[in-house]
Amino acid sequence: MTHKKRIVVIGGSAAGPKAAAKARRLDNDAEVIILQKDSDLSMASCGYPYYVGGYFDDRNMLLCTPTGVTRDPQFYLNAKAIEARTNTEVTSIDRKSHTVSYNNLLTGETGTMEYDKLVIATGATPRMPPIPGTGLKGITTLQSMKDADFLRRVRDEKIIKKAAVIGGGLIGIETCEALQLAGIEITVIELLPQLLTFLDWELAKLVENHVRAKSANVITGNGIAEFLGEDGHLTGVKLANGTELPCELAVVAIGVIPNVRLAKDAGIAIGATGGIEVNEYMQTSDPDVYAVGDCVETTHRITGKKVLAPYGDLANLQGRVAGENAASKNNVTFPGTIQTGICKVFDFSAGSTGLSASSAQKNGYEDIITVINASPDKPGFMEGLLLVTKMVADRRTGKILGAQCVGPGNVSKQIAQWAMAIQGGFIVEDIVNSDLPYAPPFSLAIDHFIATAHIMQNKIKGRFKGISVMEVHEKVKSNDKPFILDVRGPDEFEEMRLGIGETLIPLGALRKRLNEMPEDKNREIICYCKISLRGYEAALVLEANGWKNVKVMEGGIMAWPYTREK
Amino acid sequence: MTHKKRIVVIGGSAAGPKAAAKARRLDNDAEVIILQKDSDLSMASCGYPYYVGGYFDDRNMLLCTPTGVTRDPQFYLNAKAIEARTNTEVTSIDRKSHTVSYNNLLTGETGTMEYDKLVIATGATPRMPPIPGTGLKGITTLQSMKDADFLRRVRDEKIIKKAAVIGGGLIGIETCEALQLAGIEITVIELLPQLLTFLDWELAKLVENHVRAKSANVITGNGIAEFLGEDGHLTGVKLANGTELPCELAVVAIGVIPNVRLAKDAGIAIGATGGIEVNEYMQTSDPDVYAVGDCVETTHRITGKKVLAPYGDLANLQGRVAGENAASKNNVTFPGTIQTGICKVFDFSAGSTGLSASSAQKNGYEDIITVINASPDKPGFMEGLLLVTKMVADRRTGKILGAQCVGPGNVSKQIAQWAMAIQGGFIVEDIVNSDLPYAPPFSLAIDHFIATAHIMQNKIKGRFKGISVMEVHEKVKSNDKPFILDVRGPDEFEEMRLGIGETLIPLGALRKRLNEMPEDKNREIICYCKISLRGYEAALVLEANGWKNVKVMEGGIMAWPYTREK
Repeated sequence: MTHKKRIVVIGGSAAGPKAAAKARRLDNDAEVIILQKDSDLSMASCGYPYYVGGYFDDRNMLLCTPTGVTRDPQFYLNAKAIEARTNTEVTSIDRKSHTVSYNNLLTGETGTMEYDKLVIATGATPRMPPIPGTGLKGITTLQSMKDADFLRRVRDEKIIKKAAVIGGGLIGIETCEALQLAGIEITVIELLPQLLTFLDWELAKLVENHVRAKSANVITGNGIAEFLGEDGHLTGVKLANGTELPCELAVVAIGVIPNVRLAKDAGIAIGATGGIEVNEYMQTSDPDVYAVGDCVETTHRITGKKVLAPYGDLANLQGRVAGENAASKNNVTFPGTIQTGICKVFDFSAGSTGLSASSAQKNGYEDIITVINASPDKPGFMEGLLLVTKMVADRRTGKILGAQCVGPGNVSKQIAQWAMAIQGGFIVEDIVNSDLPYAPPFSLAIDHFIATAHIMQNKIKGRFKGISVMEVHEKVKSNDKPFILDVRGPDEFEEMRLGIGETLIPLGALRKRLNEMPEDKNREIICYCKISLRGYEAALVLEANGWKNVKVMEGGIMAWPYTREK
Repeated sequence: MTHKKRIVVIGGSAAGPKAAAKARRLDNDAEVIILQKDSDLSMASCGYPYYVGGYFDDRNMLLCTPTGVTRDPQFYLNAKAIEARTNTEVTSIDRKSHTVSYNNLLTGETGTMEYDKLVIATGATPRMPPIPGTGLKGITTLQSMKDADFLRRVRDEKIIKKAAVIGGGLIGIETCEALQLAGIEITVIELLPQLLTFLDWELAKLVENHVRAKSANVITGNGIAEFLGEDGHLTGVKLANGTELPCELAVVAIGVIPNVRLAKDAGIAIGATGGIEVNEYMQTSDPDVYAVGDCVETTHRITGKKVLAPYGDLANLQGRVAGENAASKNNVTFPGTIQTGICKVFDFSAGSTGLSASSAQKNGYEDIITVINASPDKPGFMEGLLLVTKMVADRRTGKILGAQCVGPGNVSKQIAQWAMAIQGGFIVEDIVNSDLPYAPPFSLAIDHFIATAHIMQNKIKGRFKGISVMEVHEKVKSNDKPFILDVRGPDEFEEMRLGIGETLIPLGALRKRLNEMPEDKNREIICYCKISLRGYEAALVLEANGWKNVKVMEGGIMAWPYTREK
């Protein structure tokens, strides 16, 4: 009996269809079958917040190819010779007999199907808080097409006035923007002390300030204790500290849990992270079973540890690897993640790649060095916009461990550059003379990325003695207050200032006004300006004139996340 | 006698002031002096085209710090303790006595000045064609503040109706846009067969098509033979082929010549490229003399050869290196260039890094492999814009040699990613699973950059058999015409088509309509679609069904630089 190789893929969102398509391209003779629980296929789920927010109105754009063909079973059959069965839930995997059992959710029909190779792409499920009231109407997530349709209706109907977003991560923040654009009064509620935990606190705080400036409320360090309701409908949320906030809608976005039940029940190994264990070929503990996307754990390329990284781009790349390996031999490998992520939040973007300072510390890096740089992305005459970057390196080796960037400027390009540098194993010295595409419509002559490395280089060499905004904030409250020097111009000072007891001496006047500086040459002095470039020059002037304890507040006023006097 | 170290910098545009500032920061005791021939200092000369084009109106923005302080001698003295003498031309360098002679262009006063270390940053001079008529009024370059002022007046006065831009390089193209935005009828005249020679022909042609679509005229493969005039004023240009074009203004932008006379007269070594020879410390053949910016030659990091790379970003980086080395010992090195460049041209950007196919060939690379990828930069629902990338790699090692990208999309980010990959010595396999910042406002789930590497990987593995638009164009004209297959939908075909004798069979129908394909299974078949993703799938279908000579036209219709039927 001739036997056609059969590759069965469980899951039809991102990683699954990619695996199926790649397998088909490599083996035209194989049967390639997708079993998809949902009624839709290949949904552009990362696009849901933008559909809800009204960036576009045509729902089909989430489900169609760029030329407007719906990615339905007919499309998969005609264009790719892939059999895609929707509304088909796989209920179990029998590895011994190489079969999966399934259940048609519309007809109730059940059946089993043999496989030669199986690809599990079952995704993840939004986490729900274990509190009373989760069954009330008006509580949703933003994970499925159905959720997107519901929230889009909320937008279009304009009935709901107040909503709470539970969770201040990527999806929470994107949802906050989407609903705020729909004219709804939003409160983001985050249990942890900050939004966007892939950022260190001070950068997350800059994002939070921006969200507040856009009239969304933000509550951090306070979890949700109960959903409150009347007649089965949500009427408000109660926080851990007892506060009650009225709202008719709550969107829960406190992370996702990998869908591993099928794999687990079949005896496939699950990792300590809760995701399916896979090797570099995206192969599970069963050599005939691959797994990809949000249901697996992956290797962090810097720490070597297993992590969950439920990102759409990685799902696609993993699908491509598993599809090839399932169709042939284990030819290709997936190297893991450096957890690069980005989100848009109103006029800001916030991105990160590699390790933040706090994640580096959690992962046992003991001697890290960080620096914050604030500068525009382009020249002022080309309407450059602010970027604030925090770079993290290994002090001993100079190896770049991570970078975060927030602001209205071109964050995406900055993070892409850092991601490439980290994946190349670059040290600081490898970046300082980077040859990047420069012209005024695109960047400064010394790009923000390179300038960040310059400051880091100066800091490593002991020339730039930086101090963080957080340390300055602490010191200001202490008894032994440092001498604080703002070296901007009087006009700038009039327009905006910290009001933390600073003295204003413009850089250009400093050499002539040294008599106004502390007599005690050992007194701690902290210099800054708008972005602390002039602050750095001032510190060098003071050091050259005998002051021994001079520091520069990194990022200057632009990186100050606390309230300003003006 | 105590002797203060004196560092003298000749040139006050980009590299010179950067070297001076860096030297000052490292040595507060040294005398740091800039001798600048021009009356301005630190001009943002890369911004001139945007001032001329009306992107901004405040001339001071080219001469001021971001906070509005003019970078004049007073600023340098107050903020940086640097003595900057403007209108001061250095006339000779006497290396034996460690002195420079100078001449005040306003007062006529002359003098000599001792130096301990000298930094030459004399820049470059625009090349002028050796033809009659160059002395006519109405002929200019766009190199100095004076030129910018002149052309801005042309814009504001709205008297001039027709202008010629001589030279289709970076500056020529930027000037073309600037003058076209001023409402002037422009003709760009380029001696070579294409604009922007850092691009390979087919990508340059896409840019040319865009320039034409913006109603600017382009003449390639035809040099200028004579400037025509009346009463001392330009009235037209005469081309090598005899054509005469009337115009009242001509902007010459056919490249620059390094200003090396001072160095040469002083016996400092000049390289074969015509630039001052420097080592990795930016040190000339005289250990006490450094040189930086447009007047030097630099090492190409891929070929190892010396090249001229007159870019503003490199000038700044070199200045930083020379400034440090002049102030202390030879501490830091400059690794050279990969000739990364970018320009904006109307709604397109055009960028390149590393080697083009033609430059790789010129540099002796015998076995290169190239691929063209066309795709949007973001999803359609986020209004993604087209990018067309050509990637060049070493076939044997897979090492990335270069990439070019043009189109209305985010070219700058693409080129930055390639530049980092090349500087990291990446091979194709290092890119295919890159972890980049993905969210719909910023990129596709599989970024254009990664997708380009995927196609290259498939091509190297023999799965993707690409053919260039140029080869297809040749073949169509030949006797032994291949079978040409467009696999888009009928609507798409109705809207836009090549009209090169193609047969339309949509991909989704192909498997059922194989009987319409050539009977001869050895007949050459060329598949394409809009961007050749469906074209690739079609080729795999045909191969799986026995056709043996199937190719995919790289980049599809979006990369087709020739006239279309529709």
